[in-house]
Amino acid sequence: MDAYERWQSTWDRHQSLLCVGLDPDLTKLPEILQGESRPLAKFCRAIIDATAPYACAFKPQFAYFAGQNRLAELAEVTSYLREHYPDHALILDVKRGDIGATAAFYAREAFTVYGATDVTVNPYMGGDTIGPFIEDPERGVFVLCRTSNPGATDLQDLMLEGEPLFLRVARKATNEWNANRNVGLVVGATWPEEIGRVRAIAPETPLLVPGIGAQGGDLSAVLAQGLDATGAGLAINASRSILYASGGSDFAEAAAREAKAMGEAINERRASRTP
Amino acid sequence: MDAYERWQSTWDRHQSLLCVGLDPDLTKLPEILQGESRPLAKFCRAIIDATAPYACAFKPQFAYFAGQNRLAELAEVTSYLREHYPDHALILDVKRGDIGATAAFYAREAFTVYGATDVTVNPYMGGDTIGPFIEDPERGVFVLCRTSNPGATDLQDLMLEGEPLFLRVARKATNEWNANRNVGLVVGATWPEEIGRVRAIAPETPLLVPGIGAQGGDLSAVLAQGLDATGAGLAINASRSILYASGGSDFAEAAAREAKAMGEAINERRASRTP
Repeated sequence: MDAYERWQSTWDRHQSLLCVGLDPDLTKLPEILQGESRPLAKFCRAIIDATAPYACAFKPQFAYFAGQNRLAELAEVTSYLREHYPDHALILDVKRGDIGATAAFYAREAFTVYGATDVTVNPYMGGDTIGPFIEDPERGVFVLCRTSNPGATDLQDLMLEGEPLFLRVARKATNEWNANRNVGLVVGATWPEEIGRVRAIAPETPLLVPGIGAQGGDLSAVLAQGLDATGAGLAINASRSILYASGGSDFAEAAAREAKAMGEAINERRASRTP
Repeated sequence: MDAYERWQSTWDRHQSLLCVGLDPDLTKLPEILQGESRPLAKFCRAIIDATAPYACAFKPQFAYFAGQNRLAELAEVTSYLREHYPDHALILDVKRGDIGATAAFYAREAFTVYGATDVTVNPYMGGDTIGPFIEDPERGVFVLCRTSNPGATDLQDLMLEGEPLFLRVARKATNEWNANRNVGLVVGATWPEEIGRVRAIAPETPLLVPGIGAQGGDLSAVLAQGLDATGAGLAINASRSILYASGGSDFAEAAAREAKAMGEAINERRASRTP
């Protein structure tokens, strides 16, 4: 089963396109967790249990654990996900990119150390730096294409021979780097028109779409532009709007409500789209 | 003191442009270290002690520690460097790049968790993703420009309005992102002509130059193209050729000989260049 087939079955099984981003910031955690040992892991486990019924994927963000010197808690979270939610995708958001010999160690980090089903990578260094990640057809590799941040335009929109760089990346990733049918693309929800342009040249490619919620992406526009022919094809990520839906002791229930509402909003729009 | 001044004083003090890359692969370590606990840290500490007299900088490669699930040994190595070699630059090679809120956590990882003086970053996501790294003028930020791997041409050479992408990155990094005079560039030794083109538009910028040694870069050409007006301006990195100069119990002495020879070869060419 290649990663494209795995994603189709993941979307079908959960009847959800929602990906819950795990970006735990110690200063934003509910007060009841502040004095605890391993607070990031406890927080994430509670969020995972609460939101799993409404999600198809979880996306731990490496930076939050690394920057707070709590990578042991990331390992606890990914281990918990593999044990309790093996049918959910586990996207390790690390945005790696390095020369081949080094990239091979990063692939081991993502797929062996953390047991991720999918990983995010940066294309700037070229195709040979993607190589070690795509070797196993079942593991998915989301290549940064058009990111959700304001500065995305700095390089990604630069025009070369009539098209912007991000479309060139989409073509390379889809046509040159995709022999194993396991290369997806990252396209930010803050740029729905660009999602449509990427979808036009990558009709079967899974798109990881961050930027819904706190970053302000428009859900209807994202779905109108990004759904594939089967009415799926997207992993729509929300982090802060779910994680911090409540700062009180009801944080998990509030996260569940928010994830349920977002999952339903996505599915209503999927059902009502003109085929 | 900004990072440019710090680098000038680092090059002056050590009379060296050599950076020793710390890329420890467990399968390549000398046999006498194979059964040890914390073998990567022991290996790196021995290499550091042996080569420090001939080097101005050390560059631990995050991937090797992360992929072998030995980040505690990276922390031991960086802590050892800060304590025993505070006048050497400590470049954490992680090639980070992410949206602002996330990049702030990566800056904490590099500068607080590991105490690096310098860090490598990826420009694909744009200027706002560089922001958190450049806040402290004393910390150096090496932006990937023209990397040493074969696939570097895939994106970095794409032509836009008459110049390749990597030169556009060099201009942005030098002119738009450099208000604190702490932005350097990564340019691979395998592309000496490109080093010259970057130097022409970034005359005062410190260049981190990987690819000498195992990757085959030509030292004379690198120096001819890359030295700045003061006869410095380069941190020339060698990793495998020094680390694995001998696989026997004399690995540290062999590394010292190799580092000494490379440091001298660099300095001879610096001395003989026409001003």
